Parts: sequence; structure tokens; C-alpha cells
Amino acid sequence: MFDNIAKTNLESLGEFGLIAHITSAVKFKQPTTVKGIGDDAAVLDFSGKKTLVSTDLLLEGIHFDLRYVPLKHLGYKAVQVNLSDIYAMNGVASQITFSLGLSSKFPLEAVEELYSGALLACEKYHVDLVGGDTSASAQGLVISVTSIGHAAAEDIVYRSGAQEGDLLCVSGDLGGAYVGLQLLEREKRIFLENPNIQPDLEGKDYVVERQLKPESRKDIVQLLADLSVKPTAMIDVSDGLASEILHICHASDKGCKLHEDKIPIDPMTYDTSREFGLDPTVCALNGGEDYELLFTIQQADYDRIKNQPDISVIGYITEKSAGCELISKSGKVHPIKAQGWNAFRDNS
Amino acid sequence: MFDNIAKTNLESLGEFGLIAHITSAVKFKQPTTVKGIGDDAAVLDFSGKKTLVSTDLLLEGIHFDLRYVPLKHLGYKAVQVNLSDIYAMNGVASQITFSLGLSSKFPLEAVEELYSGALLACEKYHVDLVGGDTSASAQGLVISVTSIGHAAAEDIVYRSGAQEGDLLCVSGDLGGAYVGLQLLEREKRIFLENPNIQPDLEGKDYVVERQLKPESRKDIVQLLADLSVKPTAMIDVSDGLASEILHICHASDKGCKLHEDKIPIDPMTYDTSREFGLDPTVCALNGGEDYELLFTIQQADYDRIKNQPDISVIGYITEKSAGCELISKSGKVHPIKAQGWNAFRDNS
Repeated sequence: MFDNIAKTNLESLGEFGLIAHITSAVKFKQPTTVKGIGDDAAVLDFSGKKTLVSTDLLLEGIHFDLRYVPLKHLGYKAVQVNLSDIYAMNGVASQITFSLGLSSKFPLEAVEELYSGALLACEKYHVDLVGGDTSASAQGLVISVTSIGHAAAEDIVYRSGAQEGDLLCVSGDLGGAYVGLQLLEREKRIFLENPNIQPDLEGKDYVVERQLKPESRKDIVQLLADLSVKPTAMIDVSDGLASEILHICHASDKGCKLHEDKIPIDPMTYDTSREFGLDPTVCALNGGEDYELLFTIQQADYDRIKNQPDISVIGYITEKSAGCELISKSGKVHPIKAQGWNAFRDNS
Repeated sequence: MFDNIAKTNLESLGEFGLIAHITSAVKFKQPTTVKGIGDDAAVLDFSGKKTLVSTDLLLEGIHFDLRYVPLKHLGYKAVQVNLSDIYAMNGVASQITFSLGLSSKFPLEAVEELYSGALLACEKYHVDLVGGDTSASAQGLVISVTSIGHAAAEDIVYRSGAQEGDLLCVSGDLGGAYVGLQLLEREKRIFLENPNIQPDLEGKDYVVERQLKPESRKDIVQLLADLSVKPTAMIDVSDGLASEILHICHASDKGCKLHEDKIPIDPMTYDTSREFGLDPTVCALNGGEDYELLFTIQQADYDRIKNQPDISVIGYITEKSAGCELISKSGKVHPIKAQGWNAFRDNS
């Protein structure tokens, strides 16, 4: 690994040297950042607004495979995954902390790649990197990101606010990240069997990018604000549509009807899942890692969102006793079950 | 490992089951916690005050050795280490997120032990656990803690505020955690050579506890407020006194004189370091992990702190060109060098 990059030993730099080196590229742009890196804690000013905090752990061999995930993409994705949680509260993401545990195989240049991806995400999403921790790791790469944001109390959207009759909506399309992962895993197996065969990902850019370089939906939060639509409940799609719908229904003490034919699936996701003998709907329901926003809105708001190409109405909220059900394309009714990713099971 | 506890497999619980199980013990007590666990992000209300954020990564085989660190102590220490950074800003710590990466060797009961230690620290320090992430780990235990606090703008103390003539002070005593680590490492080696010999830590409670169960100095922040003393600069002692003094001098663009005979060292630390053939002063300067507070105050405040048994004046701040110097007991002058812990070097 890292064959084609220069190698500077981390031990010679030390932790403080590494931090100084890395953070020299960090610029603070957010008015809410009073003090970023360089003291015991970051100091943030949300003058009267609520503070939002979310955290994620990404571990080598569990969440990513360095044999096909470029480090810059990984840094970028680690940040997106985390910002997504702030947007899912209908909040403004404004800062992150970014921590790394690095095994001895990582030269400085690999760390720079990781950070350059993280900083690219920060720049694109107008977020300041205000802290972190950097350490050796006995085994594998450890990434821990905490994202911090803010919102006025009246703007915050919880998972628990869905009401009977509300429309169930989702942004973008689903299943692509999971199908992209299948492709990358297949090419890895082929490569391991015969290293002379180069990966064949031609014409599959979209699903590969959905897996390697997801974008959190800051734009949807902005769009809803522009349309004067405040969701009644919201969550981001990290574990798969089925799991997230159940989270909203459980937190809101409601049931739902989900229409299979309304679930947005990109043609490339559809075709590629078929190539793998997978049901595209199952990829959307249980694949996860799409980082789209799933939300409920009042029926009265339907006219405001109906012509938005990036928002699909996929069902509606019912009373709890009606259960959480999928209406299939053929009209059959199935209970929705969460078969999303279980971090403690072998998911391969 | 974990021979004497019941074992419930984590895979059978799944991530959500584990989170539900663990978080059932979490109660929110802080008025600043609007919403804790159970949504995409925690919601905190610091109404007009600044938000403080700090994060730490603790990795098995680097920061701790499960062969002699009890899990409950480890959970407790992981929280203390992180709260310490908020106190070092002269802030009020009010929330943490607590994330775990768990290898398959960990049964539920081990995770419960870890959490019980973390929650004990939360309870004792009046901090809410408001979020986290829980995942499998391919190898080894990963702990990531983010602590969140708040302070009025005028109360925050940075590393950069030390002025020429300010007194350099430290709370408690130093070097104990490092000496405790030497003891534990020695007993581990003896045990590995002959498992029938039980660890001999008798009469060494204080230094062992300094290593295994440190306390962050919330009480010192309170004491200084009660005395109406606002430090001009502050940092916590995690890497060793020498390293922290240099941080303050560097950030403040100043020099300092540190008097060896003023460095507070507990008699047990002193005697035990001698047993190991170590210089007690070197243990205090470079040992680290004491989590005491190092701070500077104006000379005018000396009378207010001079009778406080838990605060020692150990030197003073000079102009930068005078350098950072240690005056030894024999009157010799040495430049202060940071030989603290380098996470990328073999420190054993």
C-alpha cells in the first residue's frame, strides 16, 4: 500500500509535529468559531441558538477497506457521514473535530491525503475543522469525527414529530451506495485472484461515487427552508430506508404505509443490482449509506414540494396500530423489517 | 480475559439493541441538555454562553493495556481525561459523547463495565452522556470521547494569556500517574513470567490510583472562582509538566523560570520512583497523565492562593528572550525540553 507516494515517517515528526503540519492548512471561516485548534478545547459562539452535536466512529476492516477506498475519498466521506446527522436535525453544520488513530504503516503523505479529503468536505460545506486527536494505533486506521452545528429552537426537527396523515418523503435516490459497494467488492476479489486484471468500473461512475464519495444533503435543508416547508420529523439514511422509517415511526409512536413503486432508484442502481441478482428495492430498503434525508411533512405542504425533482413522496404516516407496511408493486402488503447493517455481524 | 463475568454475545443484540440496552441507564440531569441520545444529534442550550468542545481517542495497546486496567476504571478514566480539557478552559463541562469500537472478544457484560465507569464519572462530575457511536472493531478496543461544556466569554482562559511576571502554578501533585504505570508494568512482567505470583501493589494505592482512576480538577476551577482568581493562562497536565509549560510559553510568546524544589511530588511518588531508579523530578516533568491544572496568575493574586494546600507556585513567567528554564535544587540552570509522551514512538 502507498507504493506510489513519498513516505515521511510519522515517528520522526511526533504528535505535535504532525498536528502542526496538518493544521497549518486549516483556516477558520465560520463566524461561530471563536477559537479552533491550539488550545485545550475549541470555543464556539452560537449566540442564543441551540448547539447540535453528533459523533461517528469509522474503523478499518469494518467500515472501509483500504484496498479500494482512496484515502482522500475516505477523509471526505468521514466528514459527510457526520455532517449528515446535523442536517437531519434541520440544523446548520458549522464545525467538526477530526481524530485519527494511525498504525505504523501510514506515512505522513497518507495522513495528508486523508486530511485533504476532510478539508475539502469542510470547505465545500462551509464547516471549520476546530480540533481532534492524533495517535498511533496498534492495528488499523481509526477515524472519529464529531460534528457540531446550531439551529434556532423552533427550526429543529426531531425523529419524533411525525403525525397521522403526514407524507413520507425522501431526497435523491436510494440503493446506489450499496450497489457501488458490491461492484468494488467484486473487483477486489477478481484483483486478488489475478493482480494483472485491472478493475472494470467503466460506466459505473454514479454508483461507485455514491459509495466512495457521498454528499450529505445540506442543499435539501436549504431547499425546504426556501419552500417554507418545515418537516415534522427527519432522519438521514445511513442504515437503509427500512431501518430509518422504523426509527421515525417508533420515535413518533406511529405506523406507516410505504409504496414500493414510489421509492426513487437511479437507473444505474437498478441495472447494476439486477446484474448482481439483487432486488433493487431490497438494496434501497436495506443497503444503507445513501445519506439522503428521510422526512415527513404535513399534507398541506404537498403543493410546495410536488414539483421538486429531488424530493419523492414515498408513503404516508398512519396510526400506530396499523403497523409499518410496504405495499409492493403487485399490491401485496409486507411488514417493514430493519435488516440494515449490523456492525456486530459479518455483513459480507 | 473476562473469565469471571457472564458473557452475552454482542452480535445477537445488534448495534441498536446494544445502544438501547446501554442507554437505558442514562439519565439527563443538566438543564443545558435539551435532547440527548435517540436522535441524529444531541441538542444543547447554552443560552448566550460560548460552547466548548474537546475530543480524545483512546486505543488499546497504545493508551491502555487490558491485562491490568479494569474496564470500569477505563471507562471512568476515558471520561476524566476529556473533561479535564474543558476545565482547562476554565469552563463548565456539561455533556459528553462516548463512542466504542468493540472487537468480538467483548461480551455485553464487558461493555456494561466500561459504561458503568463512564456513567459513574458523569454522575460524579454532573455531566450528561448525550450521544456516541457503537461499532464492531476488527482488532482491539477503541474509545472516543468528546466533551462539551460552556462558559461566559469573559471567563474563558486560553493558553495564550500569560504575562511577564505572572506566577506559574500547578494543582495537586505530579509524577504519580507515571510511577503508577511503572509499577503496573513491572507486576505485569512478573505475572507473565510466572502466573502463580500475584501482583504486589500493597501500600502503593495512591500512585496506582493516579494511573488507573485519575480525577480531573473541576474542584480547582471552582476554588479559583471562589477565590475570585481568574488565571491568565491555563492547560491540563496530560503529557507532562515540561511539555505543558512549553505550550503556555509558546502560545503566550513568553519565557519562564521553573524551580525544581517547588514542584509538588507526593512522598509515595517520590519513594516509588527512587525504587525504580528514576528521578522523581523527571517523572513529574515528563511522565504525564496527572490531569492536574497548570496555570498562571497575576502576582497581585498571590495572597489569595498562597494558603491553598492544593495549589503550588512553581515559578514565574519571563520575557520570551530569557527562554524556558528549570532552576535545579543545586541552583543549576537547564533549558526545559518536552520529552513527554510521543504517540508515534515506542514509549515503553
